[in-house]
Amino acid sequence: MKRYERHADAMAQLIHNGTLRPGDRMPSVREASRARGISPSTVFAAYYLLEAQGLVHSRPRSGYYVSARLPAALQARPPEPLPSPPQRGSTGVAISDLVFEVLGSARDRDLVPLGSAFPGLELFPLERLARCLSIGMRQLDPWTIVNSLSPGNARLRQQIALRYRLHGVAVEPDEIILTNGALEALNLCLEAVVQPGDTVVVESPTFYAALQALERLQLQALEVATHPRDGIDLDALAQALAQHPVRACWLMPSFQNPLGSLMPTGKKRELVALLERHQVPLIEDDVYGELHFAPHRPPPAKAFDGAGRVMHCSSFSKCLAPGYRVGWVAAGQYAPRVQRLKLMTTLSAAIPSQQALSEYLAQGGYDRHLRQLRRSLAQQQALALAAIDQHFPRGTRVSRPEGGYFVWVELPAQVDALALHRLALQQGISLAPGQIFSADQRFAHSVRINYGHPAQADFAQALHTVGAIACRLAGQVPRPPAISPAP
Amino acid sequence: MKRYERHADAMAQLIHNGTLRPGDRMPSVREASRARGISPSTVFAAYYLLEAQGLVHSRPRSGYYVSARLPAALQARPPEPLPSPPQRGSTGVAISDLVFEVLGSARDRDLVPLGSAFPGLELFPLERLARCLSIGMRQLDPWTIVNSLSPGNARLRQQIALRYRLHGVAVEPDEIILTNGALEALNLCLEAVVQPGDTVVVESPTFYAALQALERLQLQALEVATHPRDGIDLDALAQALAQHPVRACWLMPSFQNPLGSLMPTGKKRELVALLERHQVPLIEDDVYGELHFAPHRPPPAKAFDGAGRVMHCSSFSKCLAPGYRVGWVAAGQYAPRVQRLKLMTTLSAAIPSQQALSEYLAQGGYDRHLRQLRRSLAQQQALALAAIDQHFPRGTRVSRPEGGYFVWVELPAQVDALALHRLALQQGISLAPGQIFSADQRFAHSVRINYGHPAQADFAQALHTVGAIACRLAGQVPRPPAISPAP
Repeated sequence: MKRYERHADAMAQLIHNGTLRPGDRMPSVREASRARGISPSTVFAAYYLLEAQGLVHSRPRSGYYVSARLPAALQARPPEPLPSPPQRGSTGVAISDLVFEVLGSARDRDLVPLGSAFPGLELFPLERLARCLSIGMRQLDPWTIVNSLSPGNARLRQQIALRYRLHGVAVEPDEIILTNGALEALNLCLEAVVQPGDTVVVESPTFYAALQALERLQLQALEVATHPRDGIDLDALAQALAQHPVRACWLMPSFQNPLGSLMPTGKKRELVALLERHQVPLIEDDVYGELHFAPHRPPPAKAFDGAGRVMHCSSFSKCLAPGYRVGWVAAGQYAPRVQRLKLMTTLSAAIPSQQALSEYLAQGGYDRHLRQLRRSLAQQQALALAAIDQHFPRGTRVSRPEGGYFVWVELPAQVDALALHRLALQQGISLAPGQIFSADQRFAHSVRINYGHPAQADFAQALHTVGAIACRLAGQVPRPPAISPAP
Repeated sequence: MKRYERHADAMAQLIHNGTLRPGDRMPSVREASRARGISPSTVFAAYYLLEAQGLVHSRPRSGYYVSARLPAALQARPPEPLPSPPQRGSTGVAISDLVFEVLGSARDRDLVPLGSAFPGLELFPLERLARCLSIGMRQLDPWTIVNSLSPGNARLRQQIALRYRLHGVAVEPDEIILTNGALEALNLCLEAVVQPGDTVVVESPTFYAALQALERLQLQALEVATHPRDGIDLDALAQALAQHPVRACWLMPSFQNPLGSLMPTGKKRELVALLERHQVPLIEDDVYGELHFAPHRPPPAKAFDGAGRVMHCSSFSKCLAPGYRVGWVAAGQYAPRVQRLKLMTTLSAAIPSQQALSEYLAQGGYDRHLRQLRRSLAQQQALALAAIDQHFPRGTRVSRPEGGYFVWVELPAQVDALALHRLALQQGISLAPGQIFSADQRFAHSVRINYGHPAQADFAQALHTVGAIACRLAGQVPRPPAISPAP
């Protein structure tokens, strides 16, 4: 598939799935060219193709618009994965060796990073951040060092609190503790509320770092069934809370890693009420909350937290400043305990990073950046879904997240995800095999695919390659490339 | 005392204690003026005074030199504190509340920071570091983020390994893990080798953060007698190792916090051999190792580590880049375990900070900065010792560290250090009371004093004030200010 065809396919997918609706203006050629790192002529070629397909039409001196009457859906997309099976008892965790083996093998700069946990750096305003660093450090007075100790730079905490308020969540700056990324926030929150041997609820599948934290602190994991579209099963959770001495829940209600599921707002409210009845603290991992494709940010569970029992963890690492290692937690009633743990273990987040982010937020433009980022990721998802649809074995199921940069792909039962991962590595492609997302390596036929690397020219080709390997493992003949529509 | 008198006093102390020897050239007026943040005329006035006292003489077009025949010592200095008493059994630790109360009360920007853990920011090349930040971030390519994950930026680890080699210590870059300051390194090392309930040896008195780490991980502290000049008592340590199931030692062999003690090189070698016989890992906190006043850096215990059982922790926070939060550990055989813990909890040190320090080290000039820093701290120590000698109660004992920026002051038994701390706070002065440096709050009559703030104009006055309060608590009449020698 040529580059312009890939871009056309991505845009077609956005139209197909309703992200772009009839009458919507298409991204301008300049905008699309910059966001995707492709030449204006490639964008033009893609729009000509879409016009030929009857999907868009041009208006003089105004650009391209989605056509009012669309042709029948280009083709059926693969179905969604099924919800994970209900949990059995809680289990000890010994997953770290496998996780490190998998992650370690993926740290090669020449790989196509489908297994990466990070989006592409080309999506972030790194130059502007570097300028903000310089400005922020010029403003450094001696007091700033003391002022930047935990809970962290007061100005930055106020700016974060303000964003909560803009999203309708009541969080005071005093409740916020800055950390070295969300990962530290999550670990400190867990440490603040558990003792070795305690039971902690996680989703099934769940982010491997949650499992590693449980392993490190010698905790029992209780993995609760989770739906690939709307998140953890509340009936199953209620049952778990009734039957087990659960000491904490570590969940990702918005754009869950690895499923991409998004709990509907009402369900989040119910979740908080349910946990409140059992007086169980919720550690809410919301690092992808800003990466929504729908117009409005989904509220976090924290929005419904009356008792201060929700610890809302997030960061700038996935949506603005990767590598700056600035995250935070709004820790409710646990804030003093979390702050002490922070002071005792790593003292404070790095001052240059705190200064840079505070300066960036003060300058304005964060929301403009986020809009561009979301649009790029939505386009990339469309591209990924189209390629998976085209190349992966019959019987493949794929999640359709409404945000973030992961899809969860469930392959036919003959395909072992670790085998697929190893074979893909030999072809220069990394994958995140399903086995690292549960304590008992249950998701042996699924992979998490990162589509957040728009500058990766061989992205679609890599999915083609992975699909062909998967077909082989599934005992199917590789699927032929789709025939490009006639111009 | 006027400013020029204080400066003269400081220089007299350096001559007195042998830091400046007969025939040595005095710091040039320009150098002294910049290093101390005082005007050239103040430096001149101080040198005139010293000349009048017969301590220095000028040579035309060359500057001031220490005179060959010195007058009798200006006055006797207070004696050193006695070694701490031998340990009893190991104890659980519950010190954090007190530590946080004390540290929290000292976080007020208007206080004279005698209780601070940090040296004055004016001692560090912050502007050059900010420029290195900009340069380092301009060089950022996408791969840098992956390359900066734990164990951390490869170039910076090589630069650190090179410094080890320059100091005669064989450390490979692979053994080094970059962390968020030394505090994280120390905590991760501890976590890598213990289980809840284990016994850990610390010095007596010891750095409160070690006690907090033991408390957090539910460990038993075994506090071993420590000499204020040459560090932990090896006989007492050998006895402890024979009698208790010690799982780790957390020690600071060079410029111990709070004592300032420095283990002689041969004693460090014995320490490592002793621990090796018992196969007990040593967590070596060496954050002050670069701040020596003698010509050569004292070797760390790590220099004698044949079995890879010494985890040498240090950082740039105390000697170059406060607030950048870049520390490291050379973790020997424990490196893989420490690296995994790092990846699981905070992922990596902040990339801007790593980039800045790597750029700074590549540019050269670190050793020139260190020489200036050491000279400033040595001068400040002389000033502090003189003021304590002059104003503190009879019966006071003071350590005489050969590096770092703390002295340990043992007051008469009538003086409760917490009471002194609270009264000093009312006068706008912070102190670190001895109680926070042991699990059983044993050092109730001692305080740690930070002299590393040369730009603090009221430093000597603050020591005068603290001395007067201490005299009152000791039931002594405050001591009159010394009579300045006639010009």
